[in-house]
Amino acid sequence: METLGIDIGGTKIAGGICDEKGNIRCLQRVPTPEDAADINAAVADIYRRCKGEGDIRAIGISAAGNIASDRRTVSFAANLPAWHQYPLADAIEDLVGDGVKVIVENDANAAGWGEYRFGAGRGTHNMVMITVGTGVGGAIIVNDRLVRGGFGMAGEIGHIVMVPDGEACGCGLFGCAEQYASGSALERFAWSAARRQPNQSEHLLEACEYDRSKLIGPMVRDAAQQGDPTANEAFNLLGEWLGRLMANLSAVLDPEAFVIGGGVAEVGGMLLDPARAAFSRYLQASMYRQHPSILEARAGGKAGIIGAADLARDIDLARVD
Amino acid sequence: METLGIDIGGTKIAGGICDEKGNIRCLQRVPTPEDAADINAAVADIYRRCKGEGDIRAIGISAAGNIASDRRTVSFAANLPAWHQYPLADAIEDLVGDGVKVIVENDANAAGWGEYRFGAGRGTHNMVMITVGTGVGGAIIVNDRLVRGGFGMAGEIGHIVMVPDGEACGCGLFGCAEQYASGSALERFAWSAARRQPNQSEHLLEACEYDRSKLIGPMVRDAAQQGDPTANEAFNLLGEWLGRLMANLSAVLDPEAFVIGGGVAEVGGMLLDPARAAFSRYLQASMYRQHPSILEARAGGKAGIIGAADLARDIDLARVD
Amino acid sequence: METLGIDIGGTKIAGGICDEKGNIRCLQRVPTPEDAADINAAVADIYRRCKGEGDIRAIGISAAGNIASDRRTVSFAANLPAWHQYPLADAIEDLVGDGVKVIVENDANAAGWGEYRFGAGRGTHNMVMITVGTGVGGAIIVNDRLVRGGFGMAGEIGHIVMVPDGEACGCGLFGCAEQYASGSALERFAWSAARRQPNQSEHLLEACEYDRSKLIGPMVRDAAQQGDPTANEAFNLLGEWLGRLMANLSAVLDPEAFVIGGGVAEVGGMLLDPARAAFSRYLQASMYRQHPSILEARAGGKAGIIGAADLARDIDLARVD
Amino acid sequence: METLGIDIGGTKIAGGICDEKGNIRCLQRVPTPEDAADINAAVADIYRRCKGEGDIRAIGISAAGNIASDRRTVSFAANLPAWHQYPLADAIEDLVGDGVKVIVENDANAAGWGEYRFGAGRGTHNMVMITVGTGVGGAIIVNDRLVRGGFGMAGEIGHIVMVPDGEACGCGLFGCAEQYASGSALERFAWSAARRQPNQSEHLLEACEYDRSKLIGPMVRDAAQQGDPTANEAFNLLGEWLGRLMANLSAVLDPEAFVIGGGVAEVGGMLLDPARAAFSRYLQASMYRQHPSILEARAGGKAGIIGAADLARDIDLARVD
Repeated sequence: METLGIDIGGTKIAGGICDEKGNIRCLQRVPTPEDAADINAAVADIYRRCKGEGDIRAIGISAAGNIASDRRTVSFAANLPAWHQYPLADAIEDLVGDGVKVIVENDANAAGWGEYRFGAGRGTHNMVMITVGTGVGGAIIVNDRLVRGGFGMAGEIGHIVMVPDGEACGCGLFGCAEQYASGSALERFAWSAARRQPNQSEHLLEACEYDRSKLIGPMVRDAAQQGDPTANEAFNLLGEWLGRLMANLSAVLDPEAFVIGGGVAEVGGMLLDPARAAFSRYLQASMYRQHPSILEARAGGKAGIIGAADLARDIDLARVD
Repeated sequence: METLGIDIGGTKIAGGICDEKGNIRCLQRVPTPEDAADINAAVADIYRRCKGEGDIRAIGISAAGNIASDRRTVSFAANLPAWHQYPLADAIEDLVGDGVKVIVENDANAAGWGEYRFGAGRGTHNMVMITVGTGVGGAIIVNDRLVRGGFGMAGEIGHIVMVPDGEACGCGLFGCAEQYASGSALERFAWSAARRQPNQSEHLLEACEYDRSKLIGPMVRDAAQQGDPTANEAFNLLGEWLGRLMANLSAVLDPEAFVIGGGVAEVGGMLLDPARAAFSRYLQASMYRQHPSILEARAGGKAGIIGAADLARDIDLARVD
Repeated sequence: METLGIDIGGTKIAGGICDEKGNIRCLQRVPTPEDAADINAAVADIYRRCKGEGDIRAIGISAAGNIASDRRTVSFAANLPAWHQYPLADAIEDLVGDGVKVIVENDANAAGWGEYRFGAGRGTHNMVMITVGTGVGGAIIVNDRLVRGGFGMAGEIGHIVMVPDGEACGCGLFGCAEQYASGSALERFAWSAARRQPNQSEHLLEACEYDRSKLIGPMVRDAAQQGDPTANEAFNLLGEWLGRLMANLSAVLDPEAFVIGGGVAEVGGMLLDPARAAFSRYLQASMYRQHPSILEARAGGKAGIIGAADLARDIDLARVD
Repeated sequence: METLGIDIGGTKIAGGICDEKGNIRCLQRVPTPEDAADINAAVADIYRRCKGEGDIRAIGISAAGNIASDRRTVSFAANLPAWHQYPLADAIEDLVGDGVKVIVENDANAAGWGEYRFGAGRGTHNMVMITVGTGVGGAIIVNDRLVRGGFGMAGEIGHIVMVPDGEACGCGLFGCAEQYASGSALERFAWSAARRQPNQSEHLLEACEYDRSKLIGPMVRDAAQQGDPTANEAFNLLGEWLGRLMANLSAVLDPEAFVIGGGVAEVGGMLLDPARAAFSRYLQASMYRQHPSILEARAGGKAGIIGAADLARDIDLARVD
């Protein structure tokens, strides 16, 4: 059975026909319109352009937002106010017709499912994907199923509180993992280190013109690669916290693998090596148990498309968990 | 189909025939022998005494220890050194004969499953049981299945690190949840409060004869009920941390219900009221989401028996997750 | 002996003749020029306007910056780059002539000395002043003398680390007292609380137009006075941390009084009541020792003038500590 | 002017005649009696044995306990209940006669004064002594005078809270410096590390017979010297916290020197090297200021005698601070 996977991102909508091996055909890309109705039309248009190429029976949509347990409604999307209790699957089924069914999945979950089925997590039964971007996203697979939780909010691992009274989080809490294991944490760590040791941070400080508000993650990466000790210190500290976060998640879920994705993780070992070391230090009973693999994500930007398409595959069997 | 549920505890072994509604017949209790072979014999003896009363096709055993993914082998049991990589299911199947199958489950998991199927968690699909005893135990149900993790260690929620550099834990880490949301935390909180305000702690200090090493949880409970302000402060602080722990678990799992069991939780509202209040304060996006129920455990001391028996029911379908 | 006290602030320079009782005559105020030489000229001008009114033998200057141990040189001033290793006392003595001697003191120290000699701390021998403004400043009096430390940097109490891995501080460290007991902490606490409970923060959120970057301390004060629960929560939390900071300082210095000044402290009991309560909870051996007084500053904006003038009084006796 | 210095310790009383250069003549040692009156008699006996050897005009006593501001009364002594509001100076002046004056000083303060006057701190004007023993003691010199505080409790630096909600302290607070920078912290760190990595801790675990309650500081020292990685890790961690404590104290006092004494500090560089490194990392504005010296104590076990004797020297000038 073939399905269409569509990833509605902040800047572009991408989609294509996916087979059962995770291959994409007929890949389409359009800029994301600002309006909800225009987004629907763009999705329908991708469907129309693909429908001659395969027998599409269902569409899986990856969307940035909280998705209700029915997997059809967007409860809330920070970047698109119109998507408040919005019946996205209904709207697209109406436009598309042909009896094609639609399901909607949170983008982190769709990407995590893509990695589990076709990427770095393939072959595991219990996996956690951690997306290290501006914030920290998560997707959890347990017993070969995606974990949505009772109310659709599972996997918000960026809001585990790791430091009581710690750095203020945008969510209103203090000390969330998102403030310690994310790209914005990397910037904060780098700036703090540069503030304390400016003579060991020349690449970094010149790149951001000595202005905190201009400092962005890629500058830290470049400075680290050029040998700035403080930029390396920032990656080590980020890895330390990522390792602690994984150790906490292992205490709860004991997965066979962690898959680390997101833009910051593209540096590979510079982040994952200290993360692995810290994980071993902070894992309870570390000496007496099997350790999970800690892997780089593999499916990259297409994980959302192939994950959403795959989740739509068994749509006839789908029930509200 | 009827099965036998047996709970091998530190002081006694209890078991009986369980039907599909969680009722126990033919309940047997014997003191726990010290020797592994004698334990096996005691289990076989309970089987023999029950076998005339029903058509027992499988035995589910609840045991304190780490259970391997095969659900047949005890990897490690802190209180019974002989149970090191011990093939408990094999040993009992050999003794019992009759083609009866045996599965073994960790005691916290068995009790959690009992609460999920027949107790406070009945009707949920995603549930977390937290056992507040000397330590903190956990059992996790996701999508109607028990979560064992990739290597059988899931649910060790007492070792989420909640306070970096915090109170030393017996496991070698610092700041584990077990040091903040357990009965031993209650004792520590009570002693500290009494140390600071002895004139508000007379009941408590007299009960323990002004000796830290004699202070035990029930004394704190009694002093709180008699009106010692510091004993109440200790329960409030314990509830605060229990609430924070649940908020962290909701970030990961978003369950429909938390079921709180264990000896310390028997005080009910004295612990659960502050825990509920703290949970709401520390839950991310608290105003914008459905909250789980926070419930007292109901099945009590029999949760392990009925849980283990129920897990044995679908043994023919069982596979290594 | 009469002296001239001059307070060089960020927006205005103020000064006048001070007698031995802390009274000011001939008070002058001018806007602060941007240039170092113009500042010197403005100070000399104040001297000339006052000199007919009294027998001025010395000038004490309060300046925002790090002052060297010689009490004549500004090592560094964040807001005036030209004051880098700047011989301020020399420059002004040259301009003023008449054999008048000049000493320079850090502004927090000058104000603290003013409170100690003529304000809330009068009659004590050991006192700590805490200035709760945008940041946290301190001045320490021990054995009736101002504490400058070995290198002139004593009293930087805003940089005691109170929360390891806590909120990033502008100084490059994490978790400094300045991030927990200051006006900017108040804003952060208020925003976080409002983010979590927007329906209890209407006054505050309307005042800042739902925009974090527009939220300032006075809005929190007004909202608290109008009954916003979250604004009150923010003051309680600020008081909690101020109390903890004082408890830490009592462990080191055991002063007879804390004097709390700065713009945020003008709310009085709304801050000081929770601070006093927290102080008692966090003071070691609280039940067994005498507690210091925790007092509102009294000399207000003139503390710097009268403090600097008084420090100049015994200039002939002055030596480098 | 010669004075007698006497150090009343838990196991022995030691004393002798001290000259103005810190030399001791006629050194006497006796076991410490259990009874207050017998202690007084033992002190008087030392006086009598020494009096022929010099012109003793005053006696300075170093005593473990809280000393009132009059420097004559023991307010409280943990190890000698009879010393509760006990007029020790009166009692000894009565026994000794000859018009000899007595002053009493807290033992940490006396030792700190000894180091300041004749030991490692000689030549400084602002010094902090930190005694790293079972607990953490402190003595503070500011502007060439001992800091007793308003009520005699200054210098209790072991009770600065360094980790909110951290390790429970015997005082009833949580997270005191005493729990992180002391010999008992060393034991805890070593045990935790050994618990996590037993195969790297053979020397240590064998020395304590795998029993936490038998593990003492000297075993950690020996294991570290024999190359146990976890014992070294424990010293590094202890040094890290000692460095953080000194950085906090520099924020308040900015001393010219820290003098580190106590039994644990006798290992020298094994503790002081990581402490110095951490101090530099945690010192605010580390790059822009002069750093204090961090020195090993030099006067050793005699610091209390020569310090107390020296404090008695200017007794005629003494006043209640």
